[in-house]
Amino acid sequence: MRSVTKDNITEVFMGYLSDDTDPRMREIMGSLVKHLHGFAKEVGLTHEEWRAGIAFMEGCAGIESEDRHEFVLGSDVLGLSSVLGPFHVSGAPPLEVGGDMKRHYGGPILLAEGVIKSTDGTPIAGAEIDIWQTAPNGLYASQDEEQDTYSFHGLMTVGDDGRYAFTTVKPVEYTVPSDGPVGDILRACGRHPRRPSHLHYIVTAPGFKPLVTEVFPDDDPYLDQDTVFGVRNDLVMHYDERPAEAFPEGMALSGKVNEPFLHVAFDVTLAPED
Amino acid sequence: MRSVTKDNITEVFMGYLSDDTDPRMREIMGSLVKHLHGFAKEVGLTHEEWRAGIAFMEGCAGIESEDRHEFVLGSDVLGLSSVLGPFHVSGAPPLEVGGDMKRHYGGPILLAEGVIKSTDGTPIAGAEIDIWQTAPNGLYASQDEEQDTYSFHGLMTVGDDGRYAFTTVKPVEYTVPSDGPVGDILRACGRHPRRPSHLHYIVTAPGFKPLVTEVFPDDDPYLDQDTVFGVRNDLVMHYDERPAEAFPEGMALSGKVNEPFLHVAFDVTLAPED
Repeated sequence: MRSVTKDNITEVFMGYLSDDTDPRMREIMGSLVKHLHGFAKEVGLTHEEWRAGIAFMEGCAGIESEDRHEFVLGSDVLGLSSVLGPFHVSGAPPLEVGGDMKRHYGGPILLAEGVIKSTDGTPIAGAEIDIWQTAPNGLYASQDEEQDTYSFHGLMTVGDDGRYAFTTVKPVEYTVPSDGPVGDILRACGRHPRRPSHLHYIVTAPGFKPLVTEVFPDDDPYLDQDTVFGVRNDLVMHYDERPAEAFPEGMALSGKVNEPFLHVAFDVTLAPED
Repeated sequence: MRSVTKDNITEVFMGYLSDDTDPRMREIMGSLVKHLHGFAKEVGLTHEEWRAGIAFMEGCAGIESEDRHEFVLGSDVLGLSSVLGPFHVSGAPPLEVGGDMKRHYGGPILLAEGVIKSTDGTPIAGAEIDIWQTAPNGLYASQDEEQDTYSFHGLMTVGDDGRYAFTTVKPVEYTVPSDGPVGDILRACGRHPRRPSHLHYIVTAPGFKPLVTEVFPDDDPYLDQDTVFGVRNDLVMHYDERPAEAFPEGMALSGKVNEPFLHVAFDVTLAPED
């Protein structure tokens, strides 16, 4: 097509795709450019605004590193990641059932436990639960030079009863990094960079669809305004306080808890693969 | 909003904007996320595809530099820049009316000329025309260590008759950089990275809206498939061949042309400012 205009650009773009383009690639690119052109036309995007958009990308590029994923953060605060569901950080060390993830860190002790089961209620023996959270300073290990690489990360394999259990410290709310271009966007929108506190779980078992989820305490002040849009009602749980003497046997910390602790029960249901 | 789902994410996003958010920012972000979420939902974007998108951004980031603008190129080949119009590269050295831009470079001599006028046909005295093109090797000065910084760039101020004129070599078709993530996209779509040959003009005058345009020769094989979607019918001109003895007086090369040369006439009309 010779004369490309605002009105035919999307059609012309599709005409440029070769006949043997992968059908899924064609579907994705077609929808992408339709929405991209639609956005620019709908708002009458100016050169100056386009330049600001390019400058945003280049600003993200300038700070992108192994420990700073500004493009992922941009996807998060724009709610794109939330459309897909949260994402996994891999590489946790093994944690036995009943193990302790808090190690030497202080803060309110939390005992989290539950059963990993199939949609029919049967416990799934051998399911794996990958657990991670921020340290009490609000930073993930990958963001914090003071922590070991996998601090507050654990990978647990459950037994025949499907039960997982571990101790940690109560997660804290934290701020996503806001000193980069994504932070500029948040400020321009009058938005804060805070997330409510949560535990991350990714649960897998052979023959079942993996589940990536988060568990939020019901007393967090940011539940209704998670800056990355991760909260669902069925992920908000009550953390009840129990006296030290109610701390159960069979845990790594059994006999070592001398203060009230928090308890949360959260069962995980996996759907069978198609 | 607590329970964010695929169905309410766009609405929740808008609810997070503060009341005093700049109205244009609100308009742009609202349209942007509507289309972003719409895209992801329409194609049912998977985690793996999202990761490929993030990897694309990070790949662009990895090669972005002062001389390699991969995000701009991405905007170009997706047709976004074309929705807005082409963009200017600033910093050209002065070129007198009738001057020569080809200097020591070989190749078919092209004499380009025309009148810069207002919509009522009056020549605009003192208008400026900023001219640039690739060298005969298909590279812009900014892409080519062999060229001076402003090789094949010139900034001309026209006299009372509004006439511009200069000699150069006939531009060649060229390829946009295709060794980066944008090149990967082109290949995945079965697209070539070629642009038809053209001269770039940006024309400005006090009291008139600036005009950024390109002039294409009508014999270029890539007119119907410009990989950055820049061609418009009214920018495609015939370059006619004239004998050496027809070369006019008053040009820097007058008396020095011993072979047939090409000639293109292209008047530029500027619209008054509002």
